[in-house]
Amino acid sequence: MMFEQITIVGVGLIGGSIGRASRERGLASRVMGHGRTERTLVRAREIGCLDDFTTDLATAVRHTDLVVICTPVDRIASTILAAAPHCRPGTLFTDGGSTKGNILADLGSRLPNHVTFVPAHPLAGSEKTGPEFSRADLFENRVTILTPISTTPESAVASVDAFWRALGCRIVTMTPAEHDRALATTSHLPHAVAAGVAGVTPPGWLRLTAGGFRDTTRIAGGDPALWAAIFEANRDAVLAAVDDFTTRMAEFRSLLEQRDGPGLVQWLSDAKRVRDALGS
Amino acid sequence: MMFEQITIVGVGLIGGSIGRASRERGLASRVMGHGRTERTLVRAREIGCLDDFTTDLATAVRHTDLVVICTPVDRIASTILAAAPHCRPGTLFTDGGSTKGNILADLGSRLPNHVTFVPAHPLAGSEKTGPEFSRADLFENRVTILTPISTTPESAVASVDAFWRALGCRIVTMTPAEHDRALATTSHLPHAVAAGVAGVTPPGWLRLTAGGFRDTTRIAGGDPALWAAIFEANRDAVLAAVDDFTTRMAEFRSLLEQRDGPGLVQWLSDAKRVRDALGS
Repeated sequence: MMFEQITIVGVGLIGGSIGRASRERGLASRVMGHGRTERTLVRAREIGCLDDFTTDLATAVRHTDLVVICTPVDRIASTILAAAPHCRPGTLFTDGGSTKGNILADLGSRLPNHVTFVPAHPLAGSEKTGPEFSRADLFENRVTILTPISTTPESAVASVDAFWRALGCRIVTMTPAEHDRALATTSHLPHAVAAGVAGVTPPGWLRLTAGGFRDTTRIAGGDPALWAAIFEANRDAVLAAVDDFTTRMAEFRSLLEQRDGPGLVQWLSDAKRVRDALGS
Repeated sequence: MMFEQITIVGVGLIGGSIGRASRERGLASRVMGHGRTERTLVRAREIGCLDDFTTDLATAVRHTDLVVICTPVDRIASTILAAAPHCRPGTLFTDGGSTKGNILADLGSRLPNHVTFVPAHPLAGSEKTGPEFSRADLFENRVTILTPISTTPESAVASVDAFWRALGCRIVTMTPAEHDRALATTSHLPHAVAAGVAGVTPPGWLRLTAGGFRDTTRIAGGDPALWAAIFEANRDAVLAAVDDFTTRMAEFRSLLEQRDGPGLVQWLSDAKRVRDALGS
């Protein structure tokens, strides 16, 4: 048993999966859930994500060892600040947010000294939302990125690292800025682009689509509010990634307009080399 | 038995799958294959795509009822013109090409009167190439688009229609120009965009990708030469689709730059509505 009690704040797909995995793997004697909608929490407990729940944040974190914040990214910092005063000394915080710099900036130096926050981003998820899509094996063999800052005590990083590993993750550690720059390209840009393709497709043409369209646009089914918050939280890096991409698409357009066959083959081959390195 | 003999010219993923499906469903007494590389044809026969093969086009089509051209799109018209003089009267041609207008333009009025061509585009495939990835059920419940021209005899259209249905397809009929405009958006644009995302991703960041990147870029693994030919064959419609998409991405960029949260949610919601209409 790693912890006596874990508290999950925000029990959706990610939070629910953390709860199920923690319970199945015996990482805590008790998994407590907190959220704003009682009905969702009832459902999450029914399907095995939680042992107990409360809609009162202070109660949720009062006797806990680890708080995992799984709210949308624009509410992570404020939730930590609201919860911290009710925690006992030594309580650890981690999160599941897709952006890191904004959370640390919002926290600034306001986090009380008796708790420690080790930011995390598990690279797992789906275009689906809600605890009914949670899975105990969601983190199996997935990468979780940790972005501790230099003043974070090593023992806290080690405990949070061990927790994510125990959920099945492999750990990669980097700075918050590195994380945000990389994820702008590897996650946030693909989301914007998938939505861009879906957005220019007349619904009447959907019957004329096949697997390529289906795959390329799948994540456009994601939750608009969640993703708008992610884009805003990582605004500068996303703008830079969109600009890189726009430049590359302009190259494609120009090669095609000039009927430059060998140039198009080269442009496509450069992309294929990257994609093939990923595997299917 | 619909046909005594079918000849498949170009026995890759699509041609091989047509061969397997035709043999399994008993659509012809004999499925003949033609290609340029004997080794590929030997392999295709081994795995059940063909009854027989030849690398000589005249021999391949001499005693056949239906010729299915599955070469890259830039060689379909020339292959039909090369094969037609060797066919007996009444021989039908169809194809599996992703573009239609260019083929009909290349044929012009040069197709001999004793054969009939009914252009087809089965919306099935994969980023994989070669007969080893062929599947007898590749066309099951997929749409095949037929683009007959006004002078095509109805009996020929009916026979080709019945053939594609017998492979498992649903049939949609439209003009070549409508086809090319729609597919530029539903197939060719997604391919360019997938390659654009892969192309701006540093290989060192691939370990920081998850399912979203994987799905969005999957078709970037497709064959560069095949796809360069498709883009060139449908140049004007692809340029128009790229321009629509670029405009939509510029809207995204502008909303994000202005930190217009509600605008971003709306932009993403419009895309989600389209994608949700497709289903998972």
